[in-house]
Amino acid sequence: MKKLKRSARLVEMTQYLLSRPHTLIPLTTFAERYGSAKSSISEDLAIIKEVSEEEGLGELLTLAGAAGGVKFVPKVPQEQSLQFVQHICRLLEQPERILPGEFMYMSDILGQPGILNEIGKTFASAFYRRDFDVVMTVETKGIPLAYATASYLNLPVVIVRRDNRVTEGSAVSINYVSGSNKRIQTMSLARRALKEESRVLIIDDFMRAGGTIRGMMDLLQEFRAKVAGVGVFVESGEVDEHLVDDYVSLARLKVVDSRSRQATVVPGNYFDVKDGE
Amino acid sequence: MKKLKRSARLVEMTQYLLSRPHTLIPLTTFAERYGSAKSSISEDLAIIKEVSEEEGLGELLTLAGAAGGVKFVPKVPQEQSLQFVQHICRLLEQPERILPGEFMYMSDILGQPGILNEIGKTFASAFYRRDFDVVMTVETKGIPLAYATASYLNLPVVIVRRDNRVTEGSAVSINYVSGSNKRIQTMSLARRALKEESRVLIIDDFMRAGGTIRGMMDLLQEFRAKVAGVGVFVESGEVDEHLVDDYVSLARLKVVDSRSRQATVVPGNYFDVKDGE
Repeated sequence: MKKLKRSARLVEMTQYLLSRPHTLIPLTTFAERYGSAKSSISEDLAIIKEVSEEEGLGELLTLAGAAGGVKFVPKVPQEQSLQFVQHICRLLEQPERILPGEFMYMSDILGQPGILNEIGKTFASAFYRRDFDVVMTVETKGIPLAYATASYLNLPVVIVRRDNRVTEGSAVSINYVSGSNKRIQTMSLARRALKEESRVLIIDDFMRAGGTIRGMMDLLQEFRAKVAGVGVFVESGEVDEHLVDDYVSLARLKVVDSRSRQATVVPGNYFDVKDGE
Repeated sequence: MKKLKRSARLVEMTQYLLSRPHTLIPLTTFAERYGSAKSSISEDLAIIKEVSEEEGLGELLTLAGAAGGVKFVPKVPQEQSLQFVQHICRLLEQPERILPGEFMYMSDILGQPGILNEIGKTFASAFYRRDFDVVMTVETKGIPLAYATASYLNLPVVIVRRDNRVTEGSAVSINYVSGSNKRIQTMSLARRALKEESRVLIIDDFMRAGGTIRGMMDLLQEFRAKVAGVGVFVESGEVDEHLVDDYVSLARLKVVDSRSRQATVVPGNYFDVKDGE
């Protein structure tokens, strides 16, 4: 690549780092890419670091030494996420979302890439300290959330199917009881989709009693994999006992009445604790 | 926001524009955001425009006049996409992907956010000239592709279900014949998920005869919506007649033999025509 001026280099480096979160990039990569001295690259990185941290985009970590470099860690300050989630809570309280059986229509919200990116960044901020190999979800509505989160954590996604599709090869299936309607259901995962002993972050759109997430946990045992984190977009607060203890929720549905079409949605347990897990 | 120096402003503006593709941003937004003169902002934008176009990230369109501003249009040069697709073709040819019934395992590839982003950028580049209201796909494996594409085109996503889930409210269902196994199947879409007369970009992971995509087109007629584009990641070249005429494919499966586990995968029809539709 031809030698770039500082101004052009800053633009290029910014896009380069933003599109490679949680990836260690040696200074020599930049030095060679732009034909610049490492000292100039370090000055550029200092500017990017400052803007990134002031704007609440994330941290730019510098690792010294021969194996050193920089790593962009997307991380939104909690108060910024809270503002966003409060806006989402107001959307979720719209009366036309309340469906019979105390279900809630939220496919339109989860259909907007801008909102998904914010949710993904928030989950990535909630879990950035932990170590995962993969993000897992079950079809269908959790899928975009899982991808949005995975893209900020730089992790692959594994999708559990509610049937056993022929196109996946040999699969492991389990039965589980969905907490909401007490029906026995099946979920399955292709044997080759997950390495044994993987550390898994489970992401889903909605948790009532937690039967579906519990099912995923049971399925993971078959792969000798470990659940290292659980994140749900909306949890129902109207449940006496959850089948899952340790989870992060972004919003909590407190009261929903399908007859009067009234719902109360408040920020989830992620905001109970100040900045951190 | 406090006044920023040019270097910091460039970093901030770059991330601002990248995270808002296909969105018109008035110069005054930047001028107010950074407490800078419009002339300085214009100079910054000229730098970003140059880097963005030289690096094959996209175009920065400037719209003059009172309603003017800038719009970042992600657009990867065709030769850059071709390199990426050739790499994907080699991955798809790995013998262990060939499954009985001439199916192909590609969930691992579609599980990687980095690859999805490239695919999304490529579809966004293929369709950036056309005008859409929404991206549509059918569950399950097309979902991440649809979101990746939608995020670069700044469009909402609508997911067609293979069943009629209670949580979606009233829905329109149709029966269709899947081209590959000739079975009658059902797909449905919530009535509220799509406005009438929407212009739709259909995205899917795999197309054999095109029965599933034909089904989505029939379903769209029920919404008086218009198919304004079809993009498939991999098409099967082993089909005499397609049920869909006008589509863009990124890769084409030419020969697959499940006994010898040999597949030949070549770049799709997007690369038949030089740069453009």
